[in-house]
Amino acid sequence: MEKNSKVGSYNFVAEPFHVDFTGRLTLSVLGNHLLNCAGFHAADCGFGIAFLNENRYTWVLSRLAIELEDIPRQYEAFSIETWVENVYRLFTDRNFALVNKEGKEVGYARSVWAMINMETRKLADLLTLHSSSIVNYVCDKECPIAKPGRIKVDKGAHVLDYQTKYSDIDINGHVNSIKYIEHILDLFSIETFREKRIKRFEMAYVAESYYGDTLSFYLQEESEDQFDIEIRKGAGEVVCRSKVIFTR
Amino acid sequence: MEKNSKVGSYNFVAEPFHVDFTGRLTLSVLGNHLLNCAGFHAADCGFGIAFLNENRYTWVLSRLAIELEDIPRQYEAFSIETWVENVYRLFTDRNFALVNKEGKEVGYARSVWAMINMETRKLADLLTLHSSSIVNYVCDKECPIAKPGRIKVDKGAHVLDYQTKYSDIDINGHVNSIKYIEHILDLFSIETFREKRIKRFEMAYVAESYYGDTLSFYLQEESEDQFDIEIRKGAGEVVCRSKVIFTR
Repeated sequence: MEKNSKVGSYNFVAEPFHVDFTGRLTLSVLGNHLLNCAGFHAADCGFGIAFLNENRYTWVLSRLAIELEDIPRQYEAFSIETWVENVYRLFTDRNFALVNKEGKEVGYARSVWAMINMETRKLADLLTLHSSSIVNYVCDKECPIAKPGRIKVDKGAHVLDYQTKYSDIDINGHVNSIKYIEHILDLFSIETFREKRIKRFEMAYVAESYYGDTLSFYLQEESEDQFDIEIRKGAGEVVCRSKVIFTR
Repeated sequence: MEKNSKVGSYNFVAEPFHVDFTGRLTLSVLGNHLLNCAGFHAADCGFGIAFLNENRYTWVLSRLAIELEDIPRQYEAFSIETWVENVYRLFTDRNFALVNKEGKEVGYARSVWAMINMETRKLADLLTLHSSSIVNYVCDKECPIAKPGRIKVDKGAHVLDYQTKYSDIDINGHVNSIKYIEHILDLFSIETFREKRIKRFEMAYVAESYYGDTLSFYLQEESEDQFDIEIRKGAGEVVCRSKVIFTR
């Protein structure tokens, strides 16, 4: 992309091992691309993770919502656009558009990020970053999907216990944000994905989990096509919550 | 890459969600890149999967061996070179070099492929492909690692049963070649990867497995740093075998 542009745009191709049995790009791979694009664009704008790390700060993903009209098929080219919608003192909203090979926007995503001090793990003031230059990147490009909502799982059935493994753990020693998505989608049978596709998907990242933790998955069916999921660890501490809305 | 070159070269960056807790590119992601490069180069040479599919044929991966002196760290650029070493009637050998950001070859891989008829699943004659033009791409670039060897697991301990899930399944309805690598590495504790790194890794793909199959993992410790693994399904049919050699 052009350096310092308010909208970053990055090109991809749907690789063979990144599509599911229907030939569509998996949501966990799309999530990975979205988070990478967030990183690329933040770096291009001067507030990437490398710059933050130098000052002992880092970005933490708090919320992610993805809504799709369509999704790339195997070998199809697509691009992801990303821009900053809002900067508050403690959080910033970054949005995304998924652009198909014909140049049509076929999906959108919203994310909410905080900056934390790597030692204290406390939230830092975004408006002091680069003398608040981050606000210069705020952009009014439209993102026509709802903001991440509140997810409440109080009647969920305990459907799975999963002990985290080597491949779950990222460079920070945490279960990585993408692996949660993969484990959540694996709660559903392949028949579900044969009959339906995901229309909207939300993640709320609440607490970190670590190697060897046993994650307990609670699934609450809100309707035939809508499910809320909560992942807990230990004595019941919430790790993350998710909402999955299918369409036929 | 330059079209029709005997050595294809493709550039990558080690993405944050593609490195493990030590910050090194995971072997499953490297395997994914290798197989993609095989596909890119085959397509550039005119015998890619799209061309084969038109004629109701497809490529099938039979063996993969990877040997590494070093592996890219998070955010590091690297490239993968690939070329055809041999073409026999029923198999072809394709090799790879992993080139680090300084341009040094720090790892190699060897792969063995067959072409099958998509209806009969029978092996096809590679020398009839494009009037045997595939042999024009044979290249004598050196690949200084041993060929994939025979792996025998006859005293393996039954260490895991795993039921395949949505995220394991590729567009052909099979457990994908990369997911086996991920599940095999997950047999080892994180302490193993803290003390050692993988020096050599081999896969022999024997039979396909499908959604809902229960895969049984058998682990045989050949020495402190060398393990042979066999994955079986059903009544004991072998799905694949693997050899993992660690170094300190």
